[in-house]
Amino acid sequence: MTEAPKIQPLILSIDAMGGDFAPGAVLDGIDIARVRHPGVRFLLHGNKGQLERIIAGEAGLSGVIEIRHAPNVVAMDDKPSQALRRGHDTSMWRAIESVKTGEAAAVVSAGNTGALMAMSYFQLRTLESISRPAIAAMWPTMHGQSVVLDVGANVEADTRNLVEFAIMGAAYARSVFGMKLPTVALLNIGSEELKGNEHVKAAAKILRETDLPMSFQGFVEGDDISAGTVDVVVTDGYTGNIALKAAEGTAKLVAHYLRQAIKRSWMSMLGAALASGAFRILKVRMDPRGVNGGVLLGLNGVVVKSHGGTDGLGFASAIDLAVDMANQNIVQRIATDIKGVAAMLPPAGAPVAAEPGTPSVSQAS
Amino acid sequence: MTEAPKIQPLILSIDAMGGDFAPGAVLDGIDIARVRHPGVRFLLHGNKGQLERIIAGEAGLSGVIEIRHAPNVVAMDDKPSQALRRGHDTSMWRAIESVKTGEAAAVVSAGNTGALMAMSYFQLRTLESISRPAIAAMWPTMHGQSVVLDVGANVEADTRNLVEFAIMGAAYARSVFGMKLPTVALLNIGSEELKGNEHVKAAAKILRETDLPMSFQGFVEGDDISAGTVDVVVTDGYTGNIALKAAEGTAKLVAHYLRQAIKRSWMSMLGAALASGAFRILKVRMDPRGVNGGVLLGLNGVVVKSHGGTDGLGFASAIDLAVDMANQNIVQRIATDIKGVAAMLPPAGAPVAAEPGTPSVSQAS
Repeated sequence: MTEAPKIQPLILSIDAMGGDFAPGAVLDGIDIARVRHPGVRFLLHGNKGQLERIIAGEAGLSGVIEIRHAPNVVAMDDKPSQALRRGHDTSMWRAIESVKTGEAAAVVSAGNTGALMAMSYFQLRTLESISRPAIAAMWPTMHGQSVVLDVGANVEADTRNLVEFAIMGAAYARSVFGMKLPTVALLNIGSEELKGNEHVKAAAKILRETDLPMSFQGFVEGDDISAGTVDVVVTDGYTGNIALKAAEGTAKLVAHYLRQAIKRSWMSMLGAALASGAFRILKVRMDPRGVNGGVLLGLNGVVVKSHGGTDGLGFASAIDLAVDMANQNIVQRIATDIKGVAAMLPPAGAPVAAEPGTPSVSQAS
Repeated sequence: MTEAPKIQPLILSIDAMGGDFAPGAVLDGIDIARVRHPGVRFLLHGNKGQLERIIAGEAGLSGVIEIRHAPNVVAMDDKPSQALRRGHDTSMWRAIESVKTGEAAAVVSAGNTGALMAMSYFQLRTLESISRPAIAAMWPTMHGQSVVLDVGANVEADTRNLVEFAIMGAAYARSVFGMKLPTVALLNIGSEELKGNEHVKAAAKILRETDLPMSFQGFVEGDDISAGTVDVVVTDGYTGNIALKAAEGTAKLVAHYLRQAIKRSWMSMLGAALASGAFRILKVRMDPRGVNGGVLLGLNGVVVKSHGGTDGLGFASAIDLAVDMANQNIVQRIATDIKGVAAMLPPAGAPVAAEPGTPSVSQAS
């Protein structure tokens, strides 16, 4: 593992061409972020001519930016393997490279998630003793926010992966929430004997029996995420991604129902007009831009993924997160935590006691 | 496969003691349902003395009910395997038994899901060529409702299972929605090469290439469920259960946010009072009791699971569903559909071309 170099002032590497509204939304985001984080400087990777034309005349912006030309762009629908093979001259690759060389403390991209994951993994590599990186998301809850991971970096997760996710998620929660002993649980399903697959059960056993910087709470169910039952919810990337998107879809559906219900009478529409302040507050709380940014954990460097469709405000939130992660030395925290217990963990890919295909109770007869 | 016997009048078997508020909520539900479905009769399994005391004097109720004494009850926290071994004198077991013997056309229980699943599987067995049953839920969407399965019967699903779920879900949608060619898709995650595990991909291939009574649409993501992109969404029971509960939790969270936002000013509270009609409509639309009832598909009989914590109104919805399923001959439909293609499907538990543990793109390097 390479030591995260202390950089003064903090320099962030930015994929200026990634995302549906790049580079406009990216530059808008930096314009917001430079006020929030005075002293932070930005290494912009992308089409130099295009970027210079936009920045021209924006004195505030140009003062905190250095542009590095990258002739190509990873498209939102490029396959990760293609991007990896042929994308070394893209803004995304170059942006990650600046973290690899130590020039920047973190990289932010709103580009193609799969490509970002693949390129980051290839260039930065995982921390010693971490077998797989994970994407951690912030999930709004009744009590604030919780960390949920993995939300899409890995399609499957074995026992070792899940334990690593728990350790990384706890380190992340300690950094962003500033808490000493975050509560952590594995996502599972209800019925007693149906409880999860063998890897989930085996991971719970290890987390219960190992002394780690977290308060392990066992299992939680899907509705516990929004309830805020624990600070960190751990699951595989397939389930995490689907749960996250199912929740996003539900929030939209409820908003749709509300609008429809209000439109059905003049009285309701008048009432809604009077309550417009409340609806505005609701809108802000439900605005995904407020908590924009998934963090790729487990790598030798800080990589923040912004939503592809976000605007300047959302991109600024992703920058907030990158600044926070870099200042909090998240990479070092995870490295330390995993080092302390690596010897006690099963190797990645190790089979669990029971067969993975163990029949559930419906075949108990 | 045993032919579903035609019963005139329709007789439903009821687990009178299952659920958090049994038998009160169950009897309330029947009282509502008997008005909606004149001619339907109810075989009530449970504590005879207790049930008779409640029904005494309720002429309408006692006219449509026959009570069968069952001395025991499956507790909500009993393990399915325990219930299976020791629960043959419970109201749940006996209620299922009435379907097995052909005395009743369907069974409804608000009891322990795992036990209901195990007992139903043991007594009714799966249809010929169906390897595993699944629980199908109704999910509210922008366009009405969609069927989602499996939401918890199986922790894992292989290629064959997923194809069966698609066939069963399509038959269910044809029954409840009265449509000829429901649209069906497999739940998956976004990024191109990360697309699902090997079983999901293999199932998609089969569904694409086989002539089935459905319009197969490929993959959808988590947010497509509430969007109502397709009529039937297919996934494994672990992911489906977590997605369903994550969505329920999110709906509660949004309602909580809305209440909090309104309470912050007198103006908003006044507005909300004027718009109370709209909020009432919203509440009704979001009321889980309106679409209460998961159906266990793939068995030699109709089994409907009501939410454990529901009241009479919710239990009545579950009865609606059971009546519908019995009248629509859902068992026969599924049997016919699977029979037509069984020979083309891989055997259950068959390995897929690639290893199940195939590394995702993050190991592509």
